[in-house]
Amino acid sequence: MITLSSDFGSPYPAAMRGVMLQQTDARIVDISHTFPRQDIRTAAFWLREIVPWFPSAVHCAVIDPGVGTDRQAVVADCGGHQFVAPDNGLVRPVVRALTETDDDVDWYAIRIDDPASSTFHGRDIFAPAAAAVHERPMDALLEEDLVVPTTPETDLTFPEPTEVGGAIHGEVLVVDDFGNAITNIPGETFVQEGSLRVNGDTVPFVPSFAHVDAGTPLLTVGSHGNIELAVNQGRGDTAFDVTPGEEIVVERA
Amino acid sequence: MITLSSDFGSPYPAAMRGVMLQQTDARIVDISHTFPRQDIRTAAFWLREIVPWFPSAVHCAVIDPGVGTDRQAVVADCGGHQFVAPDNGLVRPVVRALTETDDDVDWYAIRIDDPASSTFHGRDIFAPAAAAVHERPMDALLEEDLVVPTTPETDLTFPEPTEVGGAIHGEVLVVDDFGNAITNIPGETFVQEGSLRVNGDTVPFVPSFAHVDAGTPLLTVGSHGNIELAVNQGRGDTAFDVTPGEEIVVERA
Amino acid sequence: MITLSSDFGSPYPAAMRGVMLQQTDARIVDISHTFPRQDIRTAAFWLREIVPWFPSAVHCAVIDPGVGTDRQAVVADCGGHQFVAPDNGLVRPVVRALTETDDDVDWYAIRIDDPASSTFHGRDIFAPAAAAVHERPMDALLEEDLVVPTTPETDLTFPEPTEVGGAIHGEVLVVDDFGNAITNIPGETFVQEGSLRVNGDTVPFVPSFAHVDAGTPLLTVGSHGNIELAVNQGRGDTAFDVTPGEEIVVERA
Repeated sequence: MITLSSDFGSPYPAAMRGVMLQQTDARIVDISHTFPRQDIRTAAFWLREIVPWFPSAVHCAVIDPGVGTDRQAVVADCGGHQFVAPDNGLVRPVVRALTETDDDVDWYAIRIDDPASSTFHGRDIFAPAAAAVHERPMDALLEEDLVVPTTPETDLTFPEPTEVGGAIHGEVLVVDDFGNAITNIPGETFVQEGSLRVNGDTVPFVPSFAHVDAGTPLLTVGSHGNIELAVNQGRGDTAFDVTPGEEIVVERA
Repeated sequence: MITLSSDFGSPYPAAMRGVMLQQTDARIVDISHTFPRQDIRTAAFWLREIVPWFPSAVHCAVIDPGVGTDRQAVVADCGGHQFVAPDNGLVRPVVRALTETDDDVDWYAIRIDDPASSTFHGRDIFAPAAAAVHERPMDALLEEDLVVPTTPETDLTFPEPTEVGGAIHGEVLVVDDFGNAITNIPGETFVQEGSLRVNGDTVPFVPSFAHVDAGTPLLTVGSHGNIELAVNQGRGDTAFDVTPGEEIVVERA
Repeated sequence: MITLSSDFGSPYPAAMRGVMLQQTDARIVDISHTFPRQDIRTAAFWLREIVPWFPSAVHCAVIDPGVGTDRQAVVADCGGHQFVAPDNGLVRPVVRALTETDDDVDWYAIRIDDPASSTFHGRDIFAPAAAAVHERPMDALLEEDLVVPTTPETDLTFPEPTEVGGAIHGEVLVVDDFGNAITNIPGETFVQEGSLRVNGDTVPFVPSFAHVDAGTPLLTVGSHGNIELAVNQGRGDTAFDVTPGEEIVVERA
C-alpha cells in the first residue's frame, strides 16, 4: 500500500499515480491533495494525525516549496511505515509519533540525479522512489545506489502550551475544512463540564458539537485529542476570529 | 466493495480509509466527500440516485450533525446492499429505492460503546463497523454483539409534486455542481416538445442542454428522471433564481 | 486499468464507477473530475500531458457540452492505450502524442442507441463502453456491434509559437491550480540563465520557483517542457495578468 499526500490539487497527482503504476501493483490511497499550498506545517500536522490509523504502508508526501533547489529528497524508514518526502520537516512530526527514539528510524537520501523536470519532483523523484521502496527492501535500494544513508537537515515541531498564572497559553495549529480551529492544548487539560474562558469570553466546553444549539460557539475535544474552537453547524475560525499560528488563552470560567 | 460518502472534505476521510484497511482488503470507492456540510437531505438524495448503479456493496455514509449525541448508529441490510450510517434519515430514501417493502430490510444498531472520540464517529464507529459488515455475515456480528436488532428512529422523505388547476407545483430538491436545479417533477409529467411555463416564464423543454444556444435557460429531464432547470453551459440555479427547498410552478406554455 | 477524467465535480463520477464495476474488476484511477466545465481545450491539454505517464490503460474522458446531440461517441485504439470519449477533439492531442502517424490509431463509433438518459452519457454510454473495451478485444466488440469503424469528425490542435523579429509570440494554453500560466513556448527556445522580457517586463528565467524570493515573478520550464509564468509561492496568472488563450511575447532581455 502506498499513500499519497500533496498540495497539488488536480490533475498533477494523476501523473504521480501513473508513474507509480508503471512499477507497482500496490493499492494507492489518497490522504489529501488539497493541503494548503506550500504550507509544510499544516500538512505535517495532518500526516501526524492521519497516518497512524493506517496499516503498514509507504507514504509519499510532497509539499515542496523548495523543489529544484538543493534540499534533499529522503526516505524515513520506521519499520512498519516508510516515508518518501522532501527534507523540509514535513514528515518529522509523524515519524516522531510512530517511533520511540531517533534510533527507531533510518534516514536515506534519494539519488535520482537526472529528474525529467526541476519543477515536479512529485512525478520525477518521489513517485518512482515510493514505488521502489514499496517493491524492494531498503538493502536492495542501497545496493542499487538509489538511496544512501543520510541525516535529515530540517526539523519541524509544534509548540507546547504553557501555563501562566493559571491560564493556559496555547496556539491554533490548523483550521480544518469545517472551520474548527484545532489548538495544541490537550483535551485533558480541563475537566469537560461547564464552560471555559477563551481569550476572555465564556464558552461552553462540551463533548461534541450538537450539545449546544446550532450557530452557538463551543469548545470540544477533537478527534486528535486537542481542544478545538468550533461552532455547532458553523465555523469556529470565523466566530472566534482566529487563524493558524495565533495564540489563544484558555482558563477556567 | 465498500463505498464512502461524507461531508468531511479533506483529509478526514483518509483516516476512515486507514481504519478500514486495517480490517479488510476490500476495494474502497468514494461516492463523495463534498456533500454540503450537515445537509442530510441533499446527501440522501444523491445516495438514492447513485448507489443503485453499484454492484452489491457496503455503503458507509456519514453526514452526522448529531455526532456524539444519543442518535443511533445503524446498519440497514437490504440483501445485496448494506448501509452503515447515523440514524438521521440519511439512508432511508436509498433503502426505500432498493427494496419493495419494509420487510425487505433489516435494521441493526451498532454497539461500539467506547469510541476513541465523541466528534469523529466516521473514524471511530462507522469505518470499523463498515469493515466488519464487509468481512463477516450479520449473524456473526450479532453473535459478537457488535450489532443488535433495532428500529430506525428518523425518517426522511422527499415531497411529491401536486397539481393545482392544471399547474404542477413542485420543489427544487438539490442543485448539482453544474448549477442544474433538480426538481421532484418526473420528466414524463409533460410531453418533451416546445416550451413550458416555469414560475410564469416560458422556457424551452428540450432533450439535452445543447439543444438551445449557449447561455440560454432550458428545462430538460436529468439523469435522475426528473425535470431540471438549467442553462446551456451556464448555471440554472442563478438564471432561475432558485435554491433547494423552493417551490416552483410548471405548466404548459 | 481504467482512468477517469471529467468536468463533473461530485458526485456524478461515482455513478460512472458503479456502472463500470458492474462489468469489470479493473483498477479505476481518477485523472481529474475538476477540469473547467465544458472546457474541452484545457482538458485536452492535460490528457496529453498526464496520460503518457501511465502504463497501458483504457482512458474514459468526458467533457461533453454536446451531450444528447448527434456528436459521435468514439473509441480511439492506439494499441497500448484506448480512449473512450465524445468526438469533440478532447482526445485528439493525446492520441497524436502517443502515435507516430494517423495509421497507428483505429477509431470506432460506439453504438449504444438507447441510453438511459440524454443528459449523462458519462454514466449511460462512456462508462459501459470503457468497461467493455477493458474486458474484451476490439474484434469482439465489433462482432457484438457495440462499435463500428468510424472517422473522427472534430479535431483540436494547440497553436505553435511564431518568431517575429527575434521575439517569440506564444500563447497561454492553461493555468494550473497553483496559478502557473503554462505557455506553448518550448523551454529550450531560450537559454536558461539571466532574464527574459515578457510582454515588455524583464523577469528572471530560472530552473525552479525557489530560485527567486517568495512573491517574486519568474519564468521557468514546467514539468510539461514549456515555459510557464509563475510567482514563487504565489500565482503567476495574477502577477502577469494573463488568461488562457492570451498572446504573450517573450524575447531576450
